[in-house]
Amino acid sequence: CASPFKLQSIQDLNSFVPRSHTCGELRSVHVGQEVTLCGWLQYKRHNLFVLVRDFHGLTQIILPQNENLSMLNKMLSEAPLESVVVIKGTVLPRPTGQENPGMPTGEIEVKANQAHILNLCKKLPFEIKDFVKKSEALRMQYRYLDIRSTWMQQNLRLRSKMVMKMRQYLCNHHGFVDVETPTLFKRTPGGAKEFVVPTQEPGKFYSLPQSPQQFKQLLMIGGLDRYFQIARCYRDEGSKPDRQPEFTQVDIEMSFVDQAGIQGLVEGMLHFSWPEEKGSLAIPFPVMTYAEAMNSYGVDKPDTRFDMKIKDVTTYFTSMQLGFVQEALSKPHGCVKAIRIPSGAKFIRRKELDSMKKLAEEQFKQVVVPVIVRSDGTWKCPIDKYLSDELKESLTSATEAKTEDILILAAGEHNRACAALGKLRLDAAAWLEECGVPLRDSTAYNFLWVVDFPLFLPKEDNGLELESAHHPFTAPHPDDIALLHTKPDKVRSQHYDLVLNGSEVGGGSIRIHNADLQRWVLQEVLKENVSLLSHLLEALEYGAPPHGGIALGLDRLIAIIVGASSIRDVIAFPKSFRGHDLMSNAPDIVSAEELQQYNIQVIHSPSSPREE
Amino acid sequence: CASPFKLQSIQDLNSFVPRSHTCGELRSVHVGQEVTLCGWLQYKRHNLFVLVRDFHGLTQIILPQNENLSMLNKMLSEAPLESVVVIKGTVLPRPTGQENPGMPTGEIEVKANQAHILNLCKKLPFEIKDFVKKSEALRMQYRYLDIRSTWMQQNLRLRSKMVMKMRQYLCNHHGFVDVETPTLFKRTPGGAKEFVVPTQEPGKFYSLPQSPQQFKQLLMIGGLDRYFQIARCYRDEGSKPDRQPEFTQVDIEMSFVDQAGIQGLVEGMLHFSWPEEKGSLAIPFPVMTYAEAMNSYGVDKPDTRFDMKIKDVTTYFTSMQLGFVQEALSKPHGCVKAIRIPSGAKFIRRKELDSMKKLAEEQFKQVVVPVIVRSDGTWKCPIDKYLSDELKESLTSATEAKTEDILILAAGEHNRACAALGKLRLDAAAWLEECGVPLRDSTAYNFLWVVDFPLFLPKEDNGLELESAHHPFTAPHPDDIALLHTKPDKVRSQHYDLVLNGSEVGGGSIRIHNADLQRWVLQEVLKENVSLLSHLLEALEYGAPPHGGIALGLDRLIAIIVGASSIRDVIAFPKSFRGHDLMSNAPDIVSAEELQQYNIQVIHSPSSPREE
Repeated sequence: CASPFKLQSIQDLNSFVPRSHTCGELRSVHVGQEVTLCGWLQYKRHNLFVLVRDFHGLTQIILPQNENLSMLNKMLSEAPLESVVVIKGTVLPRPTGQENPGMPTGEIEVKANQAHILNLCKKLPFEIKDFVKKSEALRMQYRYLDIRSTWMQQNLRLRSKMVMKMRQYLCNHHGFVDVETPTLFKRTPGGAKEFVVPTQEPGKFYSLPQSPQQFKQLLMIGGLDRYFQIARCYRDEGSKPDRQPEFTQVDIEMSFVDQAGIQGLVEGMLHFSWPEEKGSLAIPFPVMTYAEAMNSYGVDKPDTRFDMKIKDVTTYFTSMQLGFVQEALSKPHGCVKAIRIPSGAKFIRRKELDSMKKLAEEQFKQVVVPVIVRSDGTWKCPIDKYLSDELKESLTSATEAKTEDILILAAGEHNRACAALGKLRLDAAAWLEECGVPLRDSTAYNFLWVVDFPLFLPKEDNGLELESAHHPFTAPHPDDIALLHTKPDKVRSQHYDLVLNGSEVGGGSIRIHNADLQRWVLQEVLKENVSLLSHLLEALEYGAPPHGGIALGLDRLIAIIVGASSIRDVIAFPKSFRGHDLMSNAPDIVSAEELQQYNIQVIHSPSSPREE
Repeated sequence: CASPFKLQSIQDLNSFVPRSHTCGELRSVHVGQEVTLCGWLQYKRHNLFVLVRDFHGLTQIILPQNENLSMLNKMLSEAPLESVVVIKGTVLPRPTGQENPGMPTGEIEVKANQAHILNLCKKLPFEIKDFVKKSEALRMQYRYLDIRSTWMQQNLRLRSKMVMKMRQYLCNHHGFVDVETPTLFKRTPGGAKEFVVPTQEPGKFYSLPQSPQQFKQLLMIGGLDRYFQIARCYRDEGSKPDRQPEFTQVDIEMSFVDQAGIQGLVEGMLHFSWPEEKGSLAIPFPVMTYAEAMNSYGVDKPDTRFDMKIKDVTTYFTSMQLGFVQEALSKPHGCVKAIRIPSGAKFIRRKELDSMKKLAEEQFKQVVVPVIVRSDGTWKCPIDKYLSDELKESLTSATEAKTEDILILAAGEHNRACAALGKLRLDAAAWLEECGVPLRDSTAYNFLWVVDFPLFLPKEDNGLELESAHHPFTAPHPDDIALLHTKPDKVRSQHYDLVLNGSEVGGGSIRIHNADLQRWVLQEVLKENVSLLSHLLEALEYGAPPHGGIALGLDRLIAIIVGASSIRDVIAFPKSFRGHDLMSNAPDIVSAEELQQYNIQVIHSPSSPREE
């Protein structure tokens, strides 16, 4: 009985083309068949055989040795590697002892009886072999050659398959409607990172939006009920390195839904679309509040693949007569926090400890104090003489410290102390792993929901004013609505982040659907000019249903799943570190005449900074 | 036994939300059940009942008349229409005689026992009722209200479903890989219609490409073998009315394929994804050469839903002693052509004939001569005295003219005469239909392949130079390759257009995969600056496989399928006639300070022309 998911197995990779099989397909069962293969010459051995490669694998082709096919032999053995060929021949079993069990087609070989060179290849800038290391700049410049690698083929194909299964889940199983929303839009408040697009109307510009946020809300107001889109988004981070100016998100919005509904949907979608070869995904995902994440991991996207959590040890220090500790504890939210690095003393030397201290001071203005627990149980610590045996015992018990561990202590304002220790926790883990200590399971996929974020945060440049922690359409937590008018900084939101292995891979919220509340947040709390959003405010007055949604960062999600260190490895044609296309040389100069039709001119003279 | 296509039937429209059913779902079988519905108040009748609507339909809600639920009655009967409600109640059969067979839920009603107003609606700019006519400007300004209409809901949902089935066909059945290609790219040669996007690098601009043409070819060179993308494309047609600056194409490319392969794939895809409610689609589609299309229809996208083909009647006029006919025939490609408008004399008056003549002269510089075949068989024609009885008999027989028909004759250069008659053929058909003569079956979907286009055409502004009929990557017809170096204007291409009911809905070609040939076409025939394409030329040298593809215009395809007169009716948030978003007022002014980060300034002062 055919299951709905059997479709994959009736996939025909050879339809509409003259080949009979792919280069990865032939097995013993095909012996005796006449076949036609198309592909690239991957390897040649004298005039005896060649290996032909396509996206599916490699097949060994035996060159004919008889006189009347000598031209064929000559042609194939003389063609440069990576030339494109079509070969007809007979599938033969490999001679006993010559089978290659490491090669899926290793049971057979094809004896060629006809062949054509479809295109010759000139000398390559690098070999198309997985083991040949290339610089990333070279890979980018010849991206079309890089895409021939097994790595890139697998990444792009896994991405396509996984997105297809997400679509099946959303469209076919749950009635979502795939709606394309405009990318030529209007500047949004605070849209400093939006690219502008000049038009032929003098002085008028479109903006490339950072997300379809407004459109998806308008679709809910339009009664569409369930929307999704694999949406192209744009963000101009200018000089910030390692950002892609365009990226893709899985964009979802539902009406009449609550936070648990969106979470359940996303869990179901990821479970359904999860690549088989990565094992099965346990759902539901664990949930952690923002407060707990900050307390225990010092960050809002905890990597829960390893422990080393931040412990509060304030209570043991309250009576301690050490100046900086007393000072820290006397201030609001003053505390003492600790992390334990297991076996740290074996791998972390003075040099590493010094750079940890420096990092905490420079990035977080936080003094940290390391404690090395020697193998005899004694402590090595710069403030050792201030630490009573009782305090040491309490600390040992609280942190479960063992010999050869390192403790890092931080006394100071709660958020700062936690943030500093959270960063050191990650750095220490990375260092231990570099030293060969297995801390994080590389096959683990630890998804985590982080919830109950603050709705507003103090502005970085003016702590007395508030800005949205995420965006101004986020609904307040129902328990905190009364605080909105009195203590807006205390209001939690209905925002939720999806975290995977310590990276944020998604974020969403229940939205404000009440026009008065939305206007109040924009005008009174955020002091925004609401005229840019008048269409949305008006729309909320015409029967807007309650709604909410989420956006998953597809590039990053796929990168983590395949184990790529950069999202560039899961994007077919990414931009470089500095936003350049190294293959085509984009962005490029446009002539003043061409710009004239857009009524603009360049202010500064063009310069050509060296590309990375 | 579950078939793979049963997935649709297990679609759960109520997952993850508190409602138990949609408003279009309840039937007799649900009688007695407690249900929860969410939706909009569509209609109220005193305090007796209300109709609640969602994307799926309408349900009649009986308001409770008992004392202890009087608040509920009051709340629902007093809420303005289009307010959003959640209602719990019991499904009851409608009293005998009160069933509404015209309404899918007309067998039942729901007796409310609990309700909440989720959002109130203020006075609407227009009623959300399908029969209420609105101006298009109003529909665009309040697009979120317009999307609540059955028409827009159906169009957007049909589009989503059809695209989903296309994806299933391509990905799941035929191993295509969905690859996202960049939209921030480099200007292409002749890319005058490409929007530019300034960057923070002084003087450097990205371009928004008109199609992923280069990327899809590079993916084939990268060995990806089968690519598709539902691709966002951009075209700045500035002042040209009724164009969308962004649009969507179903973009496909395959390696090792020929023209028949691509055609078979597209036929299979359309057959598989064709909406069930539109009947089944007959494949394969008929094929017509460009020459035949121009000969018989005067256009390269013939509407084959009706006959009225152009007939060549030159032979009867060769000995005619009428000045302008003799002059026409003496020139190269001189001919006389005719179309027959059946029963034309009944509906087409002098006024219409005059405007037809005027149109032919103004648009095509072509004189046309109408012949009215009177009911007594005599002819009314301005050149009647020059027409011998023998000629009339021959013409009657050649055109199969009957009494009360109209013939339109044109003497002149072949292409011009055909083009003029082709246009009059369409106009006459439209006029007859306006008069109530059924010519074209509105449920017919006449797909047609048009093939064997010329590879190059004379430039409009300089007939001695050639330009690509489609684009410079199109491969020449294999039979005409020898002509490339001698008579390039005679070379046919391996381009193919897909035509539906007289509209071009797709176009594609087999591409040039030989670097030398591509360079020759660009440099020697087209006189292009190849430096802008050096990356593509170089890529062709590194083992490019033979490849070809197609792009279908998704917006237009869906518009024709649903019978929309404008693609705006199948796009959620289209731009107006002049490229404006009437809801948000995009494009908009951007401040000089904001433009400064892009190193540009506006040359002319901003004006605000009135929107359509």
